Amino acid sequence: MKKIIIQIYCKDQAGIIAAVTNFIANSNGNIVYIDQHVNREQDIFFMRTETEFENFSMEVFKSNFKTELVDKFDMKWRIYNAEDKPKMALFVSKYDHCLYDILGRYRSGELHCEIPLIISNHLDLKTTAAYFNIPFYHIPVTKATKAEAEIEQLQLLKEHQVDFIVLARYMQIISGNMIDHYKNKIINIHHSFLPAFIGAKPYHSAFKRGVKIIGATSHYITEELDAGPIIEQDIARVSHTYSIKDLITKGRDLEKIVLATAIKHHINRKVMVYNNKTVIFY
Amino acid sequence: MKKIIIQIYCKDQAGIIAAVTNFIANSNGNIVYIDQHVNREQDIFFMRTETEFENFSMEVFKSNFKTELVDKFDMKWRIYNAEDKPKMALFVSKYDHCLYDILGRYRSGELHCEIPLIISNHLDLKTTAAYFNIPFYHIPVTKATKAEAEIEQLQLLKEHQVDFIVLARYMQIISGNMIDHYKNKIINIHHSFLPAFIGAKPYHSAFKRGVKIIGATSHYITEELDAGPIIEQDIARVSHTYSIKDLITKGRDLEKIVLATAIKHHINRKVMVYNNKTVIFY
Amino acid sequence: MKKIIIQIYCKDQAGIIAAVTNFIANSNGNIVYIDQHVNREQDIFFMRTETEFENFSMEVFKSNFKTELVDKFDMKWRIYNAEDKPKMALFVSKYDHCLYDILGRYRSGELHCEIPLIISNHLDLKTTAAYFNIPFYHIPVTKATKAEAEIEQLQLLKEHQVDFIVLARYMQIISGNMIDHYKNKIINIHHSFLPAFIGAKPYHSAFKRGVKIIGATSHYITEELDAGPIIEQDIARVSHTYSIKDLITKGRDLEKIVLATAIKHHINRKVMVYNNKTVIFY
Amino acid sequence: MKKIIIQIYCKDQAGIIAAVTNFIANSNGNIVYIDQHVNREQDIFFMRTETEFENFSMEVFKSNFKTELVDKFDMKWRIYNAEDKPKMALFVSKYDHCLYDILGRYRSGELHCEIPLIISNHLDLKTTAAYFNIPFYHIPVTKATKAEAEIEQLQLLKEHQVDFIVLARYMQIISGNMIDHYKNKIINIHHSFLPAFIGAKPYHSAFKRGVKIIGATSHYITEELDAGPIIEQDIARVSHTYSIKDLITKGRDLEKIVLATAIKHHINRKVMVYNNKTVIFY
Repeated sequence: MKKIIIQIYCKDQAGIIAAVTNFIANSNGNIVYIDQHVNREQDIFFMRTETEFENFSMEVFKSNFKTELVDKFDMKWRIYNAEDKPKMALFVSKYDHCLYDILGRYRSGELHCEIPLIISNHLDLKTTAAYFNIPFYHIPVTKATKAEAEIEQLQLLKEHQVDFIVLARYMQIISGNMIDHYKNKIINIHHSFLPAFIGAKPYHSAFKRGVKIIGATSHYITEELDAGPIIEQDIARVSHTYSIKDLITKGRDLEKIVLATAIKHHINRKVMVYNNKTVIFY
Repeated sequence: MKKIIIQIYCKDQAGIIAAVTNFIANSNGNIVYIDQHVNREQDIFFMRTETEFENFSMEVFKSNFKTELVDKFDMKWRIYNAEDKPKMALFVSKYDHCLYDILGRYRSGELHCEIPLIISNHLDLKTTAAYFNIPFYHIPVTKATKAEAEIEQLQLLKEHQVDFIVLARYMQIISGNMIDHYKNKIINIHHSFLPAFIGAKPYHSAFKRGVKIIGATSHYITEELDAGPIIEQDIARVSHTYSIKDLITKGRDLEKIVLATAIKHHINRKVMVYNNKTVIFY
Repeated sequence: MKKIIIQIYCKDQAGIIAAVTNFIANSNGNIVYIDQHVNREQDIFFMRTETEFENFSMEVFKSNFKTELVDKFDMKWRIYNAEDKPKMALFVSKYDHCLYDILGRYRSGELHCEIPLIISNHLDLKTTAAYFNIPFYHIPVTKATKAEAEIEQLQLLKEHQVDFIVLARYMQIISGNMIDHYKNKIINIHHSFLPAFIGAKPYHSAFKRGVKIIGATSHYITEELDAGPIIEQDIARVSHTYSIKDLITKGRDLEKIVLATAIKHHINRKVMVYNNKTVIFY
Repeated sequence: MKKIIIQIYCKDQAGIIAAVTNFIANSNGNIVYIDQHVNREQDIFFMRTETEFENFSMEVFKSNFKTELVDKFDMKWRIYNAEDKPKMALFVSKYDHCLYDILGRYRSGELHCEIPLIISNHLDLKTTAAYFNIPFYHIPVTKATKAEAEIEQLQLLKEHQVDFIVLARYMQIISGNMIDHYKNKIINIHHSFLPAFIGAKPYHSAFKRGVKIIGATSHYITEELDAGPIIEQDIARVSHTYSIKDLITKGRDLEKIVLATAIKHHINRKVMVYNNKTVIFY
């Protein structure tokens, strides 16, 4: 028994759902999950299914799918084998709370992925990586060496066949070149309720503005800073008694949970991106 | 153009989704919403669709649906015309906060229903009903007259062709007979986070237990007190500084929102009930 | 028995709390509530007490308070008789959800204030005002008549000895002159999680940005738009399935609760403002 | 400069706050935090202060405090040196998520305590303890050896001068004898929103009841199971799509945060217990 995940989107039009479910039934698949969404502003249809097959050839299925559906409806499509674990690279710097949290979940079996490597511009988290038995690569980054460092990073990512990248408080701007290689595949955690407090030191800005609630936002990286598609957000109540340090401490818990949730959505192929927004099929 | 809502459930088996979507396509319907759920413990399949038809005969559709699908899969099924506004009766007593809230939403167009009548065992809310132009029936209830009162209530409900009942803090036990007439169609708001603090005076119990969070629960009435299928719950933080009166005040806001949300789910045909639990297709 | 509320702030220095509590004890007062806060960035001390007195002369107390404490510590201070109900003016336009909500709470006894009048630039909510027996003044506002209208408003506020103003979705910019007359006494509800989505149509902006959480913010009006001291904020989860209309509907519940909470904090003299931020003594 | 934390409670009566703040001023202390609460049902006054002293002798201060205040007002009292780090013992079993979380916070400096030892009835978490450099004691517990095991535990706790115990998913019933030794000093995390779902397997019960929200509760252990004073609670939304396994996964995040918050309140001497309820001075 194989479980297959299909994501499609195309211009909205009558009969898509019937065509797809029909195709699956004719291919002897049993749909165990189906969800769809219509973006009425741009008139785009999104769909995600999970389907079980007794006998399955990805090659044949894809070929037929293309002929019978993709061409007809002018679809964008992705088909995944649900068993396949995507390969996640972690980029970290000095903060350890998100890294701990991710690796703890990984070890507990909560994350259906592999973690072939951790890349960091500092050595601080090397022992943490060792404790969890994940290869750790130290690639220092300075203004002068940034371009060179990135080449090295890309080389490592390629070698390890990395599918997506998580910036677990990496604290470095990612170049457009890197983003092009991993479009909608680099997940960042921003420590504010975007679009409030874009940029550096959001807790300082939140403190200054006297907000009563702080937030955290996980999003895909795009070239425009902190403006990529939002995957997940959450918040916590604060008050005038919170110092900046208190906000940072409280925020760490948010960051961990928001990032972990975003990672799980991505790993489980629940996220589709269109027009700088996400459709997330829970 | 007519929009039709279909709810079905049956034993889980291969090919249901394809069969249903196929049937709809062959009936020239365009599915604009589809969601499904499989209860793996009892092996039950649930599905809800919204479908648009250019030309539509409910009679013909139902007849074909029955022949081609219901009999084959041994389905339980409901088909609604999305335009039809269900008729909601409000049962109230003396508390006005939930009543205000519901009628305010009703007037603003937020609730896709009709409110043919309000029934109360007290006269306190008669002017409120008048302000919103809803017929108000005063049916006093005492131990001695309870059975008689209920006959009168049932008579009124029948006359006004009421589809479902909302107990907006009605404060009276509903009899098994009434429940039988409106199975999974009587919505109650309980002022605690069920199953904590079942029964009367939950805020007093919450105060005594020293909880840090209070809740409210909206559920369908069943014969067992406060044990019916839960439709919606929400909570609010409290602290040692809250007196019982403060808990009650804070709780009123919860009750309003939780009840309104449950009503909307019911009105929009998003709730299915099975085995004393709800499946809610958002 | 009289209950007196005292708010003070001054430069932080040793011995203030002892001096104040001492002074109260020597005045035969019994402190039933005390809270304090030190803003360590600007080194400012804030304090709020509630004190009960058997015999009390406000005049004598204020005079002694000034001599013994205010002059010594260079305090800013406010003293209120807890029984006194502040007079609240409501400014409304066409949206009724916040108005209903406030008047419903007022009638239920939840708000310790008087509402001498409602002012509106439209006639839509006149019947609502009538239902709750609150005088309603219709003062149309156009670009040409804005200055004139404001003179009329100020005249009415003065006549009715209004203490503070609530903009219950009033939808008009308040002039600097009006703000000067009611500094930190004009409460607004903004339908976003400030500082995200400043300005008009925040739900449209939130929709465009694809946020997963929407918010509402109640704040005191200052000359800079949507930048005044924040009193209360709250949020609700949304998803890609929410249309702008859904966001607006969901947001209305937030607006009601956030505004009501802010009003209660203000009425109960729990808010102090310093440096464009609030200190709120719960 | 020494910072001293004072907790007192006694029958409510006039003049306590003035007497205490006066005493502190006369002892040349500068109050930097003060909070109080009156339990009006039992007429009990609670107070907590943080005070800074240039020169301080704990012995002298305590002696004077007793003579001048405790005897006069018949107070219960506790005085702590804020610098002193309480010694926390962790009891664990096989689940690692709460242990990781606590030790991660400990290492990041978020917890103002020492952790002299971890005690477990299983060996599973020994490597985790080693990674964080905390001594790990394996004391197996069977029905036959339970009494003996407890003697060994108590011996270890005494040797390491443990101040309080955290049951980080320890999964064993604590005896009355152990509870007597650490009254209101044994913190447990229960994986439900108490008092709903007392006892074992609360996620299974929550699933069966079809709740829309799950919770976690941290409380002090008392002889009655899951009925001790509640320190902290939090919740998360769930739906019909959550399997029991999903509830457990979601619940783990709650448990971590709720337990960590409770530990911080305890460590920072913010919790007072009276009549099986907590007063928590934030």
